Amino acid sequence: MIIQEMANSTSQWLRGDGPEAEIVFSCRVRLARNLEGFTFPPWAHDSVLRDVSDKVLNAVNKSDYLKNSHLINMSELSSIERRFLLERHLISLEFSAGGSRRFLVTEKGGMLSLMINEEDHLRLQSILSGLQLMDAWRLSDKVDDELGRNLDYAFLPQWGYLTSCPTNTGTGMRASCMLHLPALVATHKIDELLKNISKLGLVARGLYGEGTKSQGDFFQISNQVTLGLREEEIVDNVGRVTRQVVGQEKRAREILLKRNGTQLKDQMGRAYGILLNAHFMSSQEAINLLSRLRLGVNLHLFPQLNIPVLNELFFMITPAQLQVKEGKEMTPSVRDELRAKIIRERLGKLR
Amino acid sequence: MIIQEMANSTSQWLRGDGPEAEIVFSCRVRLARNLEGFTFPPWAHDSVLRDVSDKVLNAVNKSDYLKNSHLINMSELSSIERRFLLERHLISLEFSAGGSRRFLVTEKGGMLSLMINEEDHLRLQSILSGLQLMDAWRLSDKVDDELGRNLDYAFLPQWGYLTSCPTNTGTGMRASCMLHLPALVATHKIDELLKNISKLGLVARGLYGEGTKSQGDFFQISNQVTLGLREEEIVDNVGRVTRQVVGQEKRAREILLKRNGTQLKDQMGRAYGILLNAHFMSSQEAINLLSRLRLGVNLHLFPQLNIPVLNELFFMITPAQLQVKEGKEMTPSVRDELRAKIIRERLGKLR
Repeated sequence: MIIQEMANSTSQWLRGDGPEAEIVFSCRVRLARNLEGFTFPPWAHDSVLRDVSDKVLNAVNKSDYLKNSHLINMSELSSIERRFLLERHLISLEFSAGGSRRFLVTEKGGMLSLMINEEDHLRLQSILSGLQLMDAWRLSDKVDDELGRNLDYAFLPQWGYLTSCPTNTGTGMRASCMLHLPALVATHKIDELLKNISKLGLVARGLYGEGTKSQGDFFQISNQVTLGLREEEIVDNVGRVTRQVVGQEKRAREILLKRNGTQLKDQMGRAYGILLNAHFMSSQEAINLLSRLRLGVNLHLFPQLNIPVLNELFFMITPAQLQVKEGKEMTPSVRDELRAKIIRERLGKLR
Repeated sequence: MIIQEMANSTSQWLRGDGPEAEIVFSCRVRLARNLEGFTFPPWAHDSVLRDVSDKVLNAVNKSDYLKNSHLINMSELSSIERRFLLERHLISLEFSAGGSRRFLVTEKGGMLSLMINEEDHLRLQSILSGLQLMDAWRLSDKVDDELGRNLDYAFLPQWGYLTSCPTNTGTGMRASCMLHLPALVATHKIDELLKNISKLGLVARGLYGEGTKSQGDFFQISNQVTLGLREEEIVDNVGRVTRQVVGQEKRAREILLKRNGTQLKDQMGRAYGILLNAHFMSSQEAINLLSRLRLGVNLHLFPQLNIPVLNELFFMITPAQLQVKEGKEMTPSVRDELRAKIIRERLGKLR
């Protein structure tokens, strides 16, 4: 029921507002926390996991930010529903595999969510539209402080927050920005850019985070290192590099428009025409065409369209989203037909 | 000037009316005639060709059907203008190569045309929309009689009309129908059909006649044999086989709709979307997409469109047509851009 309700509402971070929202889809800050004296989840017995979830849920009830959130017991969800939460960027790939004593707490607008008993006892994330990384961090930080007043976090002064995987120890923070970089891809500058990013101690990933490939020219840039830096420094680093990449994407767009204006219009026009008239569409094709069209909207070639509509469409047409919304499992071919229909109707309304 | 005027008008045979016009684009009857006592054009000296053209043009002036026609001296045309006439199906590939003492007489609606000093002294053709082969023949026949009253045709009772190439001797007639067979192509039945047609003494060719390949699922069916049959028999044969093919195409369409209705809608929708939104398009792609869309219009999937508009588009976007209309030579890339614009605007008006 909760999942169904979520399927019919839009996350706030899809609004397409905030600074640089044309290129920066969203910004996210994730904090990993664990409770003092309890085994980390991957090695914990069921009774430990139960005690952890009890304690954390108790703290959630006392949080002003989280007390009115959806509470989801992961063991009660079907695999499609778990996949739905992953596609909404509310849980990790690891969490979507299911497991007992795992809970998701998610604020109704989708800006804040808390995974309980993921790899760490707590994984708190905030996600905002556009380049608002500092705001996302402040939001996470406040909720972290609130929860921390009622929980005893595992923390050592010389190390910082202790985490299940040593790569998260220290701040336990990952700050990331999801960027739409079609012009850097089209001008073949993306590979060099990604190489340079890794030299700066940052990492670039695909649409659904770790272990996923880039789709539709979306790239997620985040910090690699969590230790030896203050949280503000990490946010500042990721934000600074993101702004540089935004600048490069803007220049690449100008160059593309100047050198290949008509070819660009042609590609975008074709993408629009196909989206508006197809009767079968795989999610891969839809993402690629919507990506092209999104650039076209940014370049003011489609005055009838707007970024929020496209941002939403990216998430309305994923396999699990479709199945949750229809309330049933569907074969890929039935999904392809429904996906094409949803896109046709949504874009058709804005003709 | 005449060519420019023609480029701005539409041939009557593109109207998309007449029986079975959904499948039968047009029907054509061509008669080959030669003057008694004059060498056939391929071997004739210039003075002979001049005498022939003088005599034929004199007879044209006395013809009720042809006296108000356009008279075009082929040697005054540019290669683009000659190509334009070929694309309009007013002259043959052979005639489009140019040469002296060659004239084209063409009735203003494009239904009747007469090539002077092609392979034969006279090549008279009539072309009508839809399956009106008998009417096309009657029209040719009347004009042939008219001209024959003032010309001395080379004719032997035991052979019939003598022609430059022995394959035309006898009636000198070629009767042909241009068919749009997308469903027979899609269901992979076309090859067998074409094989069967050749067993019946008929021949199937591409869009621009002899030596050209099929484009956009268009096929031209015509008689192979001109000797030993009366003209009515040839017309009857070609007409009968055409009606059979029309029946098979209709059944193939029903089967396609029943078995692959959504795939079909998808293909046609995509074709429409691309035509309506592209900014670059080769003539090959345009013909293929228009062919798909034409089937969609026939299946009533695009109520806003109609067959005459599509029939016209097929001929408005050919390379020579574009260049004649613009009054200048254009590179392929400039043509591709103009072609896409013409299609966008024409279909866009009918949204």
